[in-house]
Amino acid sequence: MQEEVLDHLLRGTEEILVKHEFVKKLEEGRPLRIKAGFDPTAPDLHLGHTVLINKLKQFQDFGHEILFLIGDFTGMIGDPTGKNVTRKPLTQREVMENAKTYQEQIFKILDPDKTKIVFNSTWMNTMSSADLIQLAAKHTVARMLERDDFSKRYRSGQPIAIHEFLYPLIQGYDSVVMKADVELGGTDQKFNLLVGRQLQEVYGQSPQIVITMPILEGLDGIQKMSKSMNNYIGIADAQDDMFGKIMSISDELMWRYFELLSFEKMERINAYKFACDSGAENPRNIKYELAKEIVNRFHGGTSAGDAMRNFIAQFQRGAMPDEVCEITLNTSAETYCIANLLKDAGLTSSTSEAVRMINQGAVKIDGEKISDPKLGIPSGTHHVYQVGKRKFARVALG
Amino acid sequence: MQEEVLDHLLRGTEEILVKHEFVKKLEEGRPLRIKAGFDPTAPDLHLGHTVLINKLKQFQDFGHEILFLIGDFTGMIGDPTGKNVTRKPLTQREVMENAKTYQEQIFKILDPDKTKIVFNSTWMNTMSSADLIQLAAKHTVARMLERDDFSKRYRSGQPIAIHEFLYPLIQGYDSVVMKADVELGGTDQKFNLLVGRQLQEVYGQSPQIVITMPILEGLDGIQKMSKSMNNYIGIADAQDDMFGKIMSISDELMWRYFELLSFEKMERINAYKFACDSGAENPRNIKYELAKEIVNRFHGGTSAGDAMRNFIAQFQRGAMPDEVCEITLNTSAETYCIANLLKDAGLTSSTSEAVRMINQGAVKIDGEKISDPKLGIPSGTHHVYQVGKRKFARVALG
Repeated sequence: MQEEVLDHLLRGTEEILVKHEFVKKLEEGRPLRIKAGFDPTAPDLHLGHTVLINKLKQFQDFGHEILFLIGDFTGMIGDPTGKNVTRKPLTQREVMENAKTYQEQIFKILDPDKTKIVFNSTWMNTMSSADLIQLAAKHTVARMLERDDFSKRYRSGQPIAIHEFLYPLIQGYDSVVMKADVELGGTDQKFNLLVGRQLQEVYGQSPQIVITMPILEGLDGIQKMSKSMNNYIGIADAQDDMFGKIMSISDELMWRYFELLSFEKMERINAYKFACDSGAENPRNIKYELAKEIVNRFHGGTSAGDAMRNFIAQFQRGAMPDEVCEITLNTSAETYCIANLLKDAGLTSSTSEAVRMINQGAVKIDGEKISDPKLGIPSGTHHVYQVGKRKFARVALG
Repeated sequence: MQEEVLDHLLRGTEEILVKHEFVKKLEEGRPLRIKAGFDPTAPDLHLGHTVLINKLKQFQDFGHEILFLIGDFTGMIGDPTGKNVTRKPLTQREVMENAKTYQEQIFKILDPDKTKIVFNSTWMNTMSSADLIQLAAKHTVARMLERDDFSKRYRSGQPIAIHEFLYPLIQGYDSVVMKADVELGGTDQKFNLLVGRQLQEVYGQSPQIVITMPILEGLDGIQKMSKSMNNYIGIADAQDDMFGKIMSISDELMWRYFELLSFEKMERINAYKFACDSGAENPRNIKYELAKEIVNRFHGGTSAGDAMRNFIAQFQRGAMPDEVCEITLNTSAETYCIANLLKDAGLTSSTSEAVRMINQGAVKIDGEKISDPKLGIPSGTHHVYQVGKRKFARVALG
């Protein structure tokens, strides 16, 4: 039984430090304090974010205590270097509004009654500079410079402002105050999570277990899912869009999404995979299962059934092939003009036909209609292009 | 006239950054705010410390405002790494007592009515951690690692705790709060003084002029003057000791002490030097002038006259040669046994005679009687050894 719990909690994780301590903590039988920290910036969560939240949900289902930390202290300071103009200091009011939006979104997954939302301004606002100096004394410059991004920036002569060394310490100190048993984060957070572990030891606490989750790939299966890459499925996406986007992913990516996004047991998923691999099942039908689960999670009720019917009506009724052809186009330019792309991918016979189809509203990228015939598609991207009802291609720009 | 003032203020300085800005500030004609910072540790000032205080005095004599900063904020934190057990946090009471001792000593040189003593706890105690983070954002890791000692420690793998990067920033921020026009410090302080300059610019102030003063050599003429090397002349030394110690220095070191410790004009000092170099004057007589000036400064009244009479009576009445012979002894050991040293320097005919003379109280090092015939003299030191009333040698241990 314990083994089964452990397997479930470790499913899809990238790394766990350290496993035998984790097992020991689980065996204590008490509810563990599970920490995950989030920026207080305006959240518009997509499925990439939910990889972590799903893991919190699994801990919650086993009776552990979820501490959802909003790092508003540093958010209210902003990025004081002023180099990154997009990161302005947030007001208390903005932080509270963002926190509310967070809650609305995460409570589609987590149980509100079993989730504690905490703000690090609670303890950081009253910390004196003398206390912060004492905290800074607990870590060395050399260890901080071991962090990958710091090390790269230092070696390449990119400036690192000194306060950037203080942020990981504050994040680690949060773990001390919160008495975290486990902290979850993306793989890019590993260093900061380990600082928390180290500081807890300095403060005489049992060091937290660090669990990192992989960064989810976007619809293209290559780049990480992000809004700026436009390869994301937003939590707030309309149910038909959500369904269509999931149906657009490759079969390979589908198994990855199953592992990280589905709450189906791994035995079941492995059975699906076996069926597909042996030819006993059409992967498209399995993809339907994934799409239905996700749409139901965020839209509830009969939403998935409706979305599936719409999807079939819109895309598939005699049109969408079981296998969308895969095309790679190479360019040395930074962008590829959409009209050229449609022609080169064989979706239109000429660029002028492409422009006409766009103007008629008959061209979609990942299920979203486009209207600008001069649109430039960045190289390195990967999308499903559709012209009219019947022509599809998954195009990778080299 | 202005040129004369400038020459006087620059006398003996190691470096000035930057001179034309300094000239410009002087030409404004207003009293400049002259900052010098000191540790709040128990002060037992020696002439090495007065090099800086003398320079403050010169500024004071030209009507500028002296801001004597006691860095009690960090002193009350102590060295939080706990690696240096000698640097324990000081209490508010200890700091105030130390400050009082400071005042008693520096006011032998500076005019109390024209000297402002300030404590950086005044503004640092109310600084929040958020403010400190903002301050830390104003400097980069790379620039901090350019500091000589940090760079050496980093390269050799010696740990640098992160709070050590904050101390120079706090020292620099002191200049901002104090609106310093000029900051004085030892050559070892150059980096920190420049941080002040940089921060003042960031805070929209005219950057302070940085003036570094050389580190004064001790009686041996080689090592820097320090209590731990026992090569110092303390401000609180008895007048006869002070006089005798000054008389024990080499002629070469005498010119250095004249430049940095005497308030005689350089024209006069140069005339002395010319007289000695040409053989018209015995350097010993010039050394008397230096000894009298220093003793009068710290003991006042007729003290120098008394000290000189005692000195002549004790050391010189037919005994002390005009030129004390200089001997270098080489050893691969860390220390040289005093008995061997006296024999090898030709001051006694055997080690047993050396032991006997020590036991009789007839042996002095730099004018101070010793009683331990097993005393080990550290290699690298440089002292005047005396046996009986007539035998002297200045011995350098290689």
